[in-house]
Amino acid sequence: MHPEGIHIVSTGTALPGPPVDNSALARRFGASDQWEEWIQLFIGTATRHLSVDLDTGERRNSLADLAELAGRRALDSASLAPEDIDLLVMGTATPDRLLPTTASVVAERLGIDDLPVFQLQSGCTGAFQALSTAHQLLGTGAYRRALVLGGELNEKYFDLGQDFGAMRPEQLINYVLFGDGAGAAVLAADPEGARAVVRHSSVRLTGLGRPAGQILEWFGPADRTSDRIPAVEDYKEIEASVPRMSREILDRLLSDLRWTPEDVHYVMPPQLSGRMTRKVLEALALPGAQEISCVVRTGNTGNATPFFQLEQALDLMSPGDRALGISVESSKWIRAGLAIERV
Amino acid sequence: MHPEGIHIVSTGTALPGPPVDNSALARRFGASDQWEEWIQLFIGTATRHLSVDLDTGERRNSLADLAELAGRRALDSASLAPEDIDLLVMGTATPDRLLPTTASVVAERLGIDDLPVFQLQSGCTGAFQALSTAHQLLGTGAYRRALVLGGELNEKYFDLGQDFGAMRPEQLINYVLFGDGAGAAVLAADPEGARAVVRHSSVRLTGLGRPAGQILEWFGPADRTSDRIPAVEDYKEIEASVPRMSREILDRLLSDLRWTPEDVHYVMPPQLSGRMTRKVLEALALPGAQEISCVVRTGNTGNATPFFQLEQALDLMSPGDRALGISVESSKWIRAGLAIERV
Repeated sequence: MHPEGIHIVSTGTALPGPPVDNSALARRFGASDQWEEWIQLFIGTATRHLSVDLDTGERRNSLADLAELAGRRALDSASLAPEDIDLLVMGTATPDRLLPTTASVVAERLGIDDLPVFQLQSGCTGAFQALSTAHQLLGTGAYRRALVLGGELNEKYFDLGQDFGAMRPEQLINYVLFGDGAGAAVLAADPEGARAVVRHSSVRLTGLGRPAGQILEWFGPADRTSDRIPAVEDYKEIEASVPRMSREILDRLLSDLRWTPEDVHYVMPPQLSGRMTRKVLEALALPGAQEISCVVRTGNTGNATPFFQLEQALDLMSPGDRALGISVESSKWIRAGLAIERV
Repeated sequence: MHPEGIHIVSTGTALPGPPVDNSALARRFGASDQWEEWIQLFIGTATRHLSVDLDTGERRNSLADLAELAGRRALDSASLAPEDIDLLVMGTATPDRLLPTTASVVAERLGIDDLPVFQLQSGCTGAFQALSTAHQLLGTGAYRRALVLGGELNEKYFDLGQDFGAMRPEQLINYVLFGDGAGAAVLAADPEGARAVVRHSSVRLTGLGRPAGQILEWFGPADRTSDRIPAVEDYKEIEASVPRMSREILDRLLSDLRWTPEDVHYVMPPQLSGRMTRKVLEALALPGAQEISCVVRTGNTGNATPFFQLEQALDLMSPGDRALGISVESSKWIRAGLAIERV
């Protein structure tokens, strides 16, 4: 590892279309005013951005479109040219295609070439997995600067043709919780122009003996007519486990870093919903740390979420301030943590 | 990087069902005897193994089943327990689901837990991308042993319900070229029990300004009825580019390693088809190197292929022998190389 650590030079984010509020969802789903109030109260997500026009069904943009924009903003913000990047890592659960990877497509659009490119198939911890991979690979000394990308087109799981009136709450909830978006960060071995230094990154699968909390299917030619349910979430289990696991991640981070809770100035918690975020923050019990959340206005954007949080945090933090990022992937219970210090 | 380098301790592979020969394919597709001869002559692939029973359409196994078996064989062959593994990297183009990742599912089945797990979405160079990721991460000193997995269920692109008589040759060819399978290798920082040392691994995207040579779509609820063609290959471009790119990868490998062509005792070329392998070998012009191929009996198994080649090579090589692996991913033209030396 480089003696001065690995640095975050810049971030960039992108959201599609205008914000879609709960009234618009309720109208589209033929739901009652009561439903809308229920969403506000028990979910706590006010708006999300979608790549599909809910009324016409038209798709406005691909994941590559969003990731390209986020990546370009991160490069521009750091005044970097495509040839300054020598490693690209992207995380997503919902790539545009299986091949070519969205990472390869975005690289070409940004003019980035002749470098290792990795696309991680990943759930909610994917941005941290991508950041951690770049962090570690930069640490070998073989690379100077990595572009790290993450994003989601969750609307690919929105079947707008179905009868929403007949849908059970545990299915309809997916349309409320998730949003589309992409984020990017440039990490560098060199401290020049750095906004923060990465103090720690960790990713750990802890799924042994624990049923999947989320299942996302894909369909190929052989099974396009299959009646498998495309997306399943065990929200009861997620609600019970995520706050506890978040606390365990925090405790391990503090122990690994030899930090006390008082050393944490900002916390970036998991972002399943506004209400869940509050539960997680209660479990974390970090009264001195300012919360950095985006879920109320973006919904859960999966692999994009931590980039929105990072962007906000870097703007708020003063030199010497420390922030912790915490994420839980519920499909097979991956725990991820990130620690940064503003320079 | 560890001064003694990173080592390959063991390999394991798995193939589903019995071999399916060209007669069986011809019978199933209602093709002529002439077609069968044409396959033998112009493709050069004799058999492949499929996870689907071509007659009944029944799927015998998942990718996780195959990868679990390959992984178990690699662990057993090295007399390692699940807790000896502290890093898992898998590459595949055709995961069972989008979430949980097949890597996470296989980890649980093997009893592997509490470690970083990464699943790369990757085409033909995916095994090399996974091996290179593990190689580099082991080089940081943060891990002791990595289980690297790769595999494919290409049959997910076989639509057995369609009219094969009406199918154009460029579509039907996919059913001939591809096969299912999985492979595994244990890499270790420590030389104990090592069969080979990794001298070099490289992965480079070189897709700038070059159209995609392969496209693999996936379908979600929003687009299951889409008429996008699920799999498209530009075989003309692939046939023209892969031998030339393979030669360029070889030249760069030799230059980076400061090896001469005479230093290469074994070569593991890309495995699109038997005929293509011969073309690549001509372009490589390594008369002193023994070819290690599996494609004639397995078909192109994508992310599994290099593990079949590695397994064969390690059995044939004598201490001090050197082998080069070369791979080209045609979806967006990723070039990968691997150099090992038998210990």
